[in-house]
Amino acid sequence: MNTTNQHDKKLRIGVIGTGAIGVDHIRRCTHTLSGAEIVAVSDVNIDNAKKAVTPHNPNAKAYESGHDVINAENVDAVMVTSWGPTHAEYVLSAIKAGKFVFCEKPLATTIEDCDKIIQAEQAHGSRLVQVGFMRPYDKDYRALRKMIVDGAIGTPLMVHAAHRNQNVGENYVTSMAIFDTLIHELDVLRWLLDDDYISAQVIFPRQTSHTHAKLRDPQIVLLETKSGVRIDVEVFVNCQYGYDIQCSVVGEKGIVSLPDPAAVALRSDAKLCTPILTDWKERFIDAYDIEIQEFIDGCKTGKIKGPSSWNGYVAAVAAEACVKAQETQAIEAISIPERPAMYK
Amino acid sequence: MNTTNQHDKKLRIGVIGTGAIGVDHIRRCTHTLSGAEIVAVSDVNIDNAKKAVTPHNPNAKAYESGHDVINAENVDAVMVTSWGPTHAEYVLSAIKAGKFVFCEKPLATTIEDCDKIIQAEQAHGSRLVQVGFMRPYDKDYRALRKMIVDGAIGTPLMVHAAHRNQNVGENYVTSMAIFDTLIHELDVLRWLLDDDYISAQVIFPRQTSHTHAKLRDPQIVLLETKSGVRIDVEVFVNCQYGYDIQCSVVGEKGIVSLPDPAAVALRSDAKLCTPILTDWKERFIDAYDIEIQEFIDGCKTGKIKGPSSWNGYVAAVAAEACVKAQETQAIEAISIPERPAMYK
Amino acid sequence: MNTTNQHDKKLRIGVIGTGAIGVDHIRRCTHTLSGAEIVAVSDVNIDNAKKAVTPHNPNAKAYESGHDVINAENVDAVMVTSWGPTHAEYVLSAIKAGKFVFCEKPLATTIEDCDKIIQAEQAHGSRLVQVGFMRPYDKDYRALRKMIVDGAIGTPLMVHAAHRNQNVGENYVTSMAIFDTLIHELDVLRWLLDDDYISAQVIFPRQTSHTHAKLRDPQIVLLETKSGVRIDVEVFVNCQYGYDIQCSVVGEKGIVSLPDPAAVALRSDAKLCTPILTDWKERFIDAYDIEIQEFIDGCKTGKIKGPSSWNGYVAAVAAEACVKAQETQAIEAISIPERPAMYK
Amino acid sequence: MNTTNQHDKKLRIGVIGTGAIGVDHIRRCTHTLSGAEIVAVSDVNIDNAKKAVTPHNPNAKAYESGHDVINAENVDAVMVTSWGPTHAEYVLSAIKAGKFVFCEKPLATTIEDCDKIIQAEQAHGSRLVQVGFMRPYDKDYRALRKMIVDGAIGTPLMVHAAHRNQNVGENYVTSMAIFDTLIHELDVLRWLLDDDYISAQVIFPRQTSHTHAKLRDPQIVLLETKSGVRIDVEVFVNCQYGYDIQCSVVGEKGIVSLPDPAAVALRSDAKLCTPILTDWKERFIDAYDIEIQEFIDGCKTGKIKGPSSWNGYVAAVAAEACVKAQETQAIEAISIPERPAMYK
Repeated sequence: MNTTNQHDKKLRIGVIGTGAIGVDHIRRCTHTLSGAEIVAVSDVNIDNAKKAVTPHNPNAKAYESGHDVINAENVDAVMVTSWGPTHAEYVLSAIKAGKFVFCEKPLATTIEDCDKIIQAEQAHGSRLVQVGFMRPYDKDYRALRKMIVDGAIGTPLMVHAAHRNQNVGENYVTSMAIFDTLIHELDVLRWLLDDDYISAQVIFPRQTSHTHAKLRDPQIVLLETKSGVRIDVEVFVNCQYGYDIQCSVVGEKGIVSLPDPAAVALRSDAKLCTPILTDWKERFIDAYDIEIQEFIDGCKTGKIKGPSSWNGYVAAVAAEACVKAQETQAIEAISIPERPAMYK
Repeated sequence: MNTTNQHDKKLRIGVIGTGAIGVDHIRRCTHTLSGAEIVAVSDVNIDNAKKAVTPHNPNAKAYESGHDVINAENVDAVMVTSWGPTHAEYVLSAIKAGKFVFCEKPLATTIEDCDKIIQAEQAHGSRLVQVGFMRPYDKDYRALRKMIVDGAIGTPLMVHAAHRNQNVGENYVTSMAIFDTLIHELDVLRWLLDDDYISAQVIFPRQTSHTHAKLRDPQIVLLETKSGVRIDVEVFVNCQYGYDIQCSVVGEKGIVSLPDPAAVALRSDAKLCTPILTDWKERFIDAYDIEIQEFIDGCKTGKIKGPSSWNGYVAAVAAEACVKAQETQAIEAISIPERPAMYK
Repeated sequence: MNTTNQHDKKLRIGVIGTGAIGVDHIRRCTHTLSGAEIVAVSDVNIDNAKKAVTPHNPNAKAYESGHDVINAENVDAVMVTSWGPTHAEYVLSAIKAGKFVFCEKPLATTIEDCDKIIQAEQAHGSRLVQVGFMRPYDKDYRALRKMIVDGAIGTPLMVHAAHRNQNVGENYVTSMAIFDTLIHELDVLRWLLDDDYISAQVIFPRQTSHTHAKLRDPQIVLLETKSGVRIDVEVFVNCQYGYDIQCSVVGEKGIVSLPDPAAVALRSDAKLCTPILTDWKERFIDAYDIEIQEFIDGCKTGKIKGPSSWNGYVAAVAAEACVKAQETQAIEAISIPERPAMYK
Repeated sequence: MNTTNQHDKKLRIGVIGTGAIGVDHIRRCTHTLSGAEIVAVSDVNIDNAKKAVTPHNPNAKAYESGHDVINAENVDAVMVTSWGPTHAEYVLSAIKAGKFVFCEKPLATTIEDCDKIIQAEQAHGSRLVQVGFMRPYDKDYRALRKMIVDGAIGTPLMVHAAHRNQNVGENYVTSMAIFDTLIHELDVLRWLLDDDYISAQVIFPRQTSHTHAKLRDPQIVLLETKSGVRIDVEVFVNCQYGYDIQCSVVGEKGIVSLPDPAAVALRSDAKLCTPILTDWKERFIDAYDIEIQEFIDGCKTGKIKGPSSWNGYVAAVAAEACVKAQETQAIEAISIPERPAMYK
């Protein structure tokens, strides 16, 4: 597109899957961000798809199949927000169509599928895929990384992190603590440290009584990186008290830590209290906006820079080792192949 | 507009005055917000107007006169971001044209002009004017107000506030501490307390050596409200260390306070440090976005809800009393007429 | 005393007045501090005096009159912890006897009596009197002062302070907000700034419903110093939420603030909370210990260094002006004579 | 002693070993605490012993041998502050003499010696030994424990802790991270949780460049308790930035955390900073005072309540397992026998 078109024309996006996150991205693209419009949608239930898009764009077309969305002539770029197991199929289809695709995590539910995507994208010759890891777009994580890169703490040696949710549903099982929750840490910590994982261990502390038979909660995941950095991540998804993301990086001469979100302080009843978030959507809402805006802008200039399918692949490999470590209770190796040139 | 148009058509905005804040709003409307486009601009220097808008919309038209912007057929709404003394003229012109107008503070530089605007708007019969007080859009001020309204501190009795800038230029003189700086506090504190001012006193502490001959800095402004709440605001515009906005409301049973903006904490060299903002634009950037988006959305639905010309008028009356109090060093009465029905 | 005696012999203290603070000092000298013992006591009710001292030292003697305590042969030094209006009489008696005397604040309830004490002490030729202002012994106030002296904030320009009590009894009236409460701020702020007051103004905000007919609560006291520093102190003695002492000193290039006392933080129920003290005795307990220990040590070496009768006199002069300002609602001058050489 | 004697007579203490901590306790007992005096000392260098005690009590007697101190007729109680490997010998000698003994940690350098002490004390029939673990006397640790006991966080599930020193000398080697440093955590965490350890694992992260050939630094120690609580302790003794003790206990419904020590906050140069302690002695100075005062008071009433020789024994068993885990890099079992009735 030339400069004039860039301002005249919006990026026409097709959305596959209109569950909670799909609907949120339709709203975001229509009302919060600039330079894009939602022109096509699909869902396993086409009525849901129609209902999701009509209030935002009554002219958008609803399709039975995600592939039809991808191949619609007026669709410039695709967002995959369907059920995890269907991601790979749609991403591969988008690559085949030569269209940019934003895929919510996970990129795929098997390493084989991640691998197929990487191969297909490399065959295409340039990046088409952005994976929905939003934390690198959070201003606090960015500040954390900047301070590390600027040398404020010297060489990083350890990371202490925690991912706590107030509670989860009955269908959230032990392995989802890795695939659904830890996956964010697996991506963002690599990015923070500019490093790769080589081993994982999982520890099961005394269980909370607020969990259920199929979920061991909390869990502690220990990771080791190539450079020897040791990471401990507490994953506690029924912590009751709130949504709380903590991260401290300990270096040779100092420590940087994520702040608690700023919140009005109340002095009353012999206590000084600040509220803790309970809704995870609020914690990273700005990051989601920046992430998707950058995807839109990248599509328009022909060059996307966000988390790549390589990130999705590596996170999948690490996650698989963590799940194995849950089962074996032993230290499991994580083996990441050489990064292809296209992703460097 | 009907619902369909609302999605199809953008609000076409004309911007009068392309200084720093004008340029920022052009950028904001074009890239950050949704549902609007800048189609016309003017400036005392038409070349500046062209330069300001071209990168964002090469099709926008630059005019010699702000009145031409207002009266341009394709302009749906107007933003007045010109030099303060010209505000009233353009706002009155927009009211005459029956167009929505967002006017950066001050609404006008004299109470008489504020009054003319209120009369004109009432003659028109419905609100057309929104004044650019952005703090009520800040999430922390909103949380502060919600806690007060919800009764967390009981009846408010006192407010301790501070407005500190790192430094100001040579052309910033003593009265500007009121007209340019305190004006924000004057608006937001009324809104926080749902109250009106009845008197003002100004105290000049020992001066900082970082000021100049025409600026007494710092100043402390004491305000009294109808219900008896006492407010002290430190205005210190050469505080050197950063941009820092503080506000605590003391009630019968508790105190609520604005937080410092969240920032990554560093432990190093025997100190625990968090950065303090230095750029005022960063402090309220989210508030600006919400403020202008709400103006855009309001124009499209035909009903604007933000700070009204009545707010602008009352702030002007209070500011004038404060400036008189600077001169007399006495307690000056603030007399606010009955609020017209349209502004209730 | 020679060095050997210093270790062999304890300072033998007589205590006049065995109310709450007297009993606390008896306990402190007997069990917490070293180098002193309580050998004599008196009280308006001699039975109370006996009951107060017996558990700590059954050999201590109880007297009908404070003057007998002062003149008892085995009494090396005196602590005056009786009712305020009796302080001056006992302090003058101790000076006459040439004995060191620690007098709880106030030194005297009239300026005339303060003046008599200063004259008597000067006639004696060296310091004998220490007044019970304990805040300069608090580690946080000391750190605050050190940072100011070290230049961390540049020249001080303003002080924002607050003194809040959870609640007070029915016999606490408007003027006691000055004589009993503000008196601590009057002493410690002079010491912090190394400056003297020249005027006072008192503002009465909307009253809390938790006060009674004879107490205006809260109050804001505005003070001006010789060097032009402006001080605002909120005095709020029925704040309900806790005992809270705040102090920030604003200088040309930075601000130093007292911390909230360290306290264990609890994350639960969507809130992060730390307890606020409710008992004022806990806030300065370490300061009391250091204060009295230094008095004991000073008596033994023949040279006391703590707050002098000059401090007591100046605080009384400033307090009287503040009470006048409560009545007149005008700015009242504070006139402090030249400091006598002995107190420099 | 009868009540009268308790007030008349001081506890006469003999101190064995006049290195840094011995000298500090002599000063503490003489000047800061009440009810005790130092009457006898010994040291491997008797001149050091004399020099250590003379300024505080010129009448105290210096002995060649610690056993002579123990057996001196005028010695009521003993403090063992000599080199670690000599502790057991003196503690056993004190038990034999039927005298109360305060022994700085470690109680003994072998489990066998700890066991001998426990056997000897049980043979004596009542507690004579207090081990110098001071953290349970720290007000913040006490508040932490109280909140756990009171149910504020529900059942404890995990502990995240850190022990950081600015730096250590060349003679501090890898195992000392356990015996000298972790030992405090081993004692205080059992006390916090009212639980016992069953396994230990040690992880060596990337090493800091500020360590030396014989010290692996930092280390992470993972502990498991009988009830399933999982503990991670970062031990980092060359962290450069300060002395920093962190502890958070995560329970079923909340988290309690030690605060950073309160410290004056400075806003300057675009940063908000509070100092971090660098001297470990300052962090627990109040705890030391309370600990030794309680020992003195306990000796006088014939009943001591502080950390017992059982605590010393259990800490030794756990520490030995941790050192084994350093060597094997495997999970090592910790086997604690049934607690004898006398220590319940």
